[in-house]
Amino acid sequence: MCIKGVLLLDHTDANTNIEYLVSQVREFLQERDWQKYHNPKDLAESICVEAAELLQLFQWMSREEVCAFKDISSNVERLKEELADVVIYCLSMTNAMDIDLTSTVIDKLKRNRKKYPSKLYRGKAHL
Amino acid sequence: MCIKGVLLLDHTDANTNIEYLVSQVREFLQERDWQKYHNPKDLAESICVEAAELLQLFQWMSREEVCAFKDISSNVERLKEELADVVIYCLSMTNAMDIDLTSTVIDKLKRNRKKYPSKLYRGKAHL
Amino acid sequence: MCIKGVLLLDHTDANTNIEYLVSQVREFLQERDWQKYHNPKDLAESICVEAAELLQLFQWMSREEVCAFKDISSNVERLKEELADVVIYCLSMTNAMDIDLTSTVIDKLKRNRKKYPSKLYRGKAHL
Amino acid sequence: MCIKGVLLLDHTDANTNIEYLVSQVREFLQERDWQKYHNPKDLAESICVEAAELLQLFQWMSREEVCAFKDISSNVERLKEELADVVIYCLSMTNAMDIDLTSTVIDKLKRNRKKYPSKLYRGKAHL
Repeated sequence: MCIKGVLLLDHTDANTNIEYLVSQVREFLQERDWQKYHNPKDLAESICVEAAELLQLFQWMSREEVCAFKDISSNVERLKEELADVVIYCLSMTNAMDIDLTSTVIDKLKRNRKKYPSKLYRGKAHL
Repeated sequence: MCIKGVLLLDHTDANTNIEYLVSQVREFLQERDWQKYHNPKDLAESICVEAAELLQLFQWMSREEVCAFKDISSNVERLKEELADVVIYCLSMTNAMDIDLTSTVIDKLKRNRKKYPSKLYRGKAHL
Repeated sequence: MCIKGVLLLDHTDANTNIEYLVSQVREFLQERDWQKYHNPKDLAESICVEAAELLQLFQWMSREEVCAFKDISSNVERLKEELADVVIYCLSMTNAMDIDLTSTVIDKLKRNRKKYPSKLYRGKAHL
Repeated sequence: MCIKGVLLLDHTDANTNIEYLVSQVREFLQERDWQKYHNPKDLAESICVEAAELLQLFQWMSREEVCAFKDISSNVERLKEELADVVIYCLSMTNAMDIDLTSTVIDKLKRNRKKYPSKLYRGKAHL
């Protein structure tokens, strides 16, 4: 897209920081005056509700159907919608709690690296 | 932090793109050879399980306790851990499904803007 | 109802044992040849999905709305439907695992009585 | 068991009605003065939290591990504990909402029989 000589790129994972996504969600809420509903308990409930809708896409699916899931574009579209709902509420939680999501994730990965040393856990989900 | 003249910034929402977080999660999995477990159905299950652990932090909490939640730093630390678990599995889903999370979220916000016009929904969770 | 001199009572909590409910669910499944789907992992998923649909009835509800919930008959009807879905899958799990639900529940209540002595926990959700 | 000429049977699905289970849960709550916490929203949250703990028993389990699950007695014991937690909160909801669980379940099975006619759905989870 090119408006008045400015090249506008689409937002992708490669060119978008978390702050932009967080701000987009905040803006959406402010337009509707919905921040008042966003206490952390109700947000945690909504994350749960949306996570279950994501899971519902796979209800009663056999291993074979799960393997083929990705090849059917309508499946991918439905998954993207449900995953987005979970992530948007996680970004809302970030807003509501005034935390930095990036460092939160990186800190947790560090802790997981200690908890599950690759030498011990390589190839195993459990010990 | 400054090593050999290179300024190393801590990663924050302001300077980190989603691709970096996705790659960090991918690296963590590859070190443990855990991608083999990451079919979308089991990932959706894990997102559900972690979302419920996040919700559990608020079990039986009254409105007053929820309001005061943010002021107690041990609460914030526990919430960050549980929220990180949900987000890390969402990033794993992004990996497993080869999708772009940023555009997925932005597309969904667009759809939500149409579904919930701010004129109609301003200040109301339901019509 | 009275057919050929036999008084047929409606089934209620007062006159129906758990076995009857379990057998009703089993019959429903057998008529559809659905037992084959009922492995315990997929059943646990379905219990989760239905539990979240029950929770969704209360999404964003304030304390006042929750207090008034019971007085609105359409609310009660929706809750009964969603609660029934959770319970039916729990009865299916009982079937699939060949366990006795009554003794399972009574044993757990015994353990809870030890874990939460009424002298210590009276009036308190946490210590 | 026989005390003073009275034969005391253990409670099982064959000899116990729902009312007895509901009353056992009510008694447990009254001893602790916990009914005050049991509004339907918080109960729905707790059903969700416990359902996810049940699901967690199967996290990352392969089809083969799920098939063998029932043969390992420690698995069965853990499942019974988690299933009991879900069911106990469902019985608490029955208490809190003053509804009859038996007729609620039977009504829902009737509706499901209409929604999924066995002729159409025999052997198929979806059409």
